[in-house]
Amino acid sequence: MPVTGDSTVAEVLDEYGKITRAHLKTWLPQGDPGDYLYGPMADYPQRGGRMFRPSLCIATGRMFGASIEQLVPAAVSIELLHNALLIHDDIEDESDERRGKPTLHKQIGTPLALNAGDSLAFLSLRPIIKASSSMGSASVVRILEEFDQMAQQTAEGQALDLGWRRDNQIDLREQDYLKMVLKKTCWLTTLFPVRLGALIGSGGRANLDSLFNFAFFLGAAFQIQDDVLNLVGNHERYGKELGGDLLEGKRTLMLVNLLELSSSEERTRIKTILDTPREARSEASVSWLQSSMIDKGCIDYAKELAHGLAGAASHEFEKVFNGLPESGDKAFLSKLPSWVIERS
Amino acid sequence: MPVTGDSTVAEVLDEYGKITRAHLKTWLPQGDPGDYLYGPMADYPQRGGRMFRPSLCIATGRMFGASIEQLVPAAVSIELLHNALLIHDDIEDESDERRGKPTLHKQIGTPLALNAGDSLAFLSLRPIIKASSSMGSASVVRILEEFDQMAQQTAEGQALDLGWRRDNQIDLREQDYLKMVLKKTCWLTTLFPVRLGALIGSGGRANLDSLFNFAFFLGAAFQIQDDVLNLVGNHERYGKELGGDLLEGKRTLMLVNLLELSSSEERTRIKTILDTPREARSEASVSWLQSSMIDKGCIDYAKELAHGLAGAASHEFEKVFNGLPESGDKAFLSKLPSWVIERS
Repeated sequence: MPVTGDSTVAEVLDEYGKITRAHLKTWLPQGDPGDYLYGPMADYPQRGGRMFRPSLCIATGRMFGASIEQLVPAAVSIELLHNALLIHDDIEDESDERRGKPTLHKQIGTPLALNAGDSLAFLSLRPIIKASSSMGSASVVRILEEFDQMAQQTAEGQALDLGWRRDNQIDLREQDYLKMVLKKTCWLTTLFPVRLGALIGSGGRANLDSLFNFAFFLGAAFQIQDDVLNLVGNHERYGKELGGDLLEGKRTLMLVNLLELSSSEERTRIKTILDTPREARSEASVSWLQSSMIDKGCIDYAKELAHGLAGAASHEFEKVFNGLPESGDKAFLSKLPSWVIERS
Repeated sequence: MPVTGDSTVAEVLDEYGKITRAHLKTWLPQGDPGDYLYGPMADYPQRGGRMFRPSLCIATGRMFGASIEQLVPAAVSIELLHNALLIHDDIEDESDERRGKPTLHKQIGTPLALNAGDSLAFLSLRPIIKASSSMGSASVVRILEEFDQMAQQTAEGQALDLGWRRDNQIDLREQDYLKMVLKKTCWLTTLFPVRLGALIGSGGRANLDSLFNFAFFLGAAFQIQDDVLNLVGNHERYGKELGGDLLEGKRTLMLVNLLELSSSEERTRIKTILDTPREARSEASVSWLQSSMIDKGCIDYAKELAHGLAGAASHEFEKVFNGLPESGDKAFLSKLPSWVIERS
C-alpha cells in the first residue's frame, strides 16, 4: 500500500515496518549454534515492536528524495541495534518482561543473553557495510561515523541512568533528566534515524545539525510518554510490567519532578524507599510513591511537558522542512509529534 | 628500539605494545560521565596485558611491507575490542579477578560494567573508521568486513562455551573443544590480527585464507597453554584466580580429555560436581577433579597437544611465509609458536 498524504501514522508504521522486518529477517543467521546464539538473537525482533525508528529513517530519507531500497540497509541496522540494546538494557535493569513475554535473560540466562546482545550489536553494522557495492565505500564510512557518534551518546546516557540509580542519586533536576534522555533515548530513537535518512536522501548535502531540535523534541516527548505509560498504561498493550520503572528506581520525569516538589522529610523517605533492594521494597511504599506523584501533579506535569515538547517538535518541523515538496512521507512526519503523545 | 632478527619475543611485544598503548590512550574519551563510563572503559586497558594481539598484527603487516603508522589503527582496534570482550566475559563467567585486580563488574556493578563494555566495543571501530582519510574508504570497508566475520565467529565460540556449561554438557570430544577454541579464541587472538596485518601490508593482494592453519595452530596452542596455566600456573604472574576454570566449570582441554578417559561412574561423579553451583562446590570435589586430571595424565596430554600444535604452526609458518624477505618481524613471528607454549 503506497504511502500518501491520507495515510495514518499507524498505516505508515505498518507499511515501513513490514518492509524492514522482511529485510531484517534475511540478515539473521541460521544454523548452529541455534539454541545458544541464533535462536536468542532472533527472539526480540520476532516479538514485533512498533518499528518507529526504521520508519522514521525511511520516511525522512524519502522526503529528501531517496528510494526505499536505498534506505532499507540503514533502517534494518537501526532496528537490529535497538533490539541488541534492549537485551542488554533488560539485563542491566533486571527487567522481567519485554513485549509481553519474559525478557531474554530470564529465559536463557544472563551469560547467553549478554553474548547474543553483543552478536546482534555487531550484526547491526553488517547491512551498512555490505551496502558498499550499491552506495559506495565513502557513503558507508560516512554512515558509520554517524553510527559511532550515536553509539557513544547512547552509552553516555545509559551510564547516567544506571549510575544515578546505583548511587541512589536524588539531587536531580529536570535539566539533568532531559540531558539523560537526549543521550539515552533521543540519539538512537530519533536523531540517528532522522540524520541517516537526511544523509542518504540528500546525498550528503543536507545540514544534519539543523534537524537537532525537531528530533530531540520528538524523542523527549516519546520518552516522557513512555515514562507515563509505564505507570498508568494498559499492561496488555504496553507489553512490560506496569510500574516497572518504580520497582527499578528509574529516574523518570515524574520521579525527578516529585523530588523537586518534595519537602526535605519527604525526600528522605523517597530516598530510603529507592535504596531498598527491589525484592525487599514493600508494595505499600511503592503505592505511596505512586500516589504522591498523583497528589503533587507529577503525572499531569509529565503529560503537559510531553505535550509542550510535541508542539515544539511540530513547530521545528514546519521551520526546517518548509522547503521540501509535499508528500505522504512529509505528512507522516508532520503527524508524528501528536502520535507520540497520544499512543497508548 | 628497532626490531631486528636478534630481538627476543618479549622485546618485540614490549616495543609494539608500547606503541599500541600510547595510541590507544588517545582514543579513550575523557570527561563526563567519568565515574560511570569513561573511567571504567579505561580500566582494563590501563591494567596492562601482554599486547600479544596488536603486536601480532603489526609484525605481520610489517613483514608484508606496511609501516607501523599504517598498522596502528588496526592494532588499537584489536586491543580495544579484546578489552571490551574481557569485561563481558568476566560478567558471563562471574570471574573475580582480571590482571591481578577485581574484575570490573565486581568493582562497579554489572549494569555499569556491561554498558562500559558495549561502549568500548563500539569504540574499537573508531580507529578504523577514522583511518579513511589515510587509507581510503574502500580499505576501511574491507577491514570492517573482516571485523564483522571475526565478531560473528567469536560470538559463536563464546555461545558454545557458555551453552555447554549452562547445560552441563559432558558429551564432548577433543574435536568439539578445538572447534570451540577456533571460534572463541583463535579468531580474535590470531586469525584476525594476522589477516588484518597481511591485508594492510599487501594492499589487499595477499591470500588471507592461506594463513588459516598458521593462525589456528598458534591460537589453539595459546589457548591450551592458558588452560594449563589456569590450573598449575603462578598466581602472581597469571593475574587470575588459579583453578578459576574448574570453579567456573569451563570445558577446558583437560576436562574434555578427563571425560573421554573416565568410566561411566566417574563421568557421573564429574557431572554432579560440575552441576553444583559454584559457591556450593566443595574444595574436596574440586581437588578430586584436579588430581584425577593429574592421575589420568590430562595435564601432560594438554601440554603435549599444545606442543604439537606449536610445531605445526612453525611448519605452516615456513611453508606460507617462505617467499617473504628476512626481517626482524619475520623472526619474531617465527619464534611465537615456541613462546606461546613456554610462557608462564
